[in-house]
Amino acid sequence: MTESEIGVAAMHRLCKKAGAERVSEAAAKELGKVVEGIGVKIAKDALEYAVHSGRKTIKAKDIEIATRKVMEK
Amino acid sequence: MTESEIGVAAMHRLCKKAGAERVSEAAAKELGKVVEGIGVKIAKDALEYAVHSGRKTIKAKDIEIATRKVMEK
Repeated sequence: MTESEIGVAAMHRLCKKAGAERVSEAAAKELGKVVEGIGVKIAKDALEYAVHSGRKTIKAKDIEIATRKVMEK
Repeated sequence: MTESEIGVAAMHRLCKKAGAERVSEAAAKELGKVVEGIGVKIAKDALEYAVHSGRKTIKAKDIEIATRKVMEK
């Protein structure tokens, strides 16, 4: 994971949504890194579920089950 | 959560990073929704840690501890 795929501006908006008035730039970057890591983890699991079902395309149902598994752990 | 703060294109890139060749539009949207939900949850926790420390600004260390707590559950 070299460059973050998720913009820092989006992370500032997430924090606003969470009720924060102010967020340091480092915090927004850290949140982006974390959220991206979780997203990639879920996507990897989802890909396994897709392949298991004989598909090459990740579908929404793969994301749903992968999310449950990743967040349960 | 009405409109997603995280773009669908970024979610397609995350899935590519995870090794997926193809991702349905609905799956990318679902991943965006999920990732945003987790991000807001972490940001809310981080805000509590900031306030607890007498700050109004979320710092990177607040995100770090909040991530550990959210992902532990």
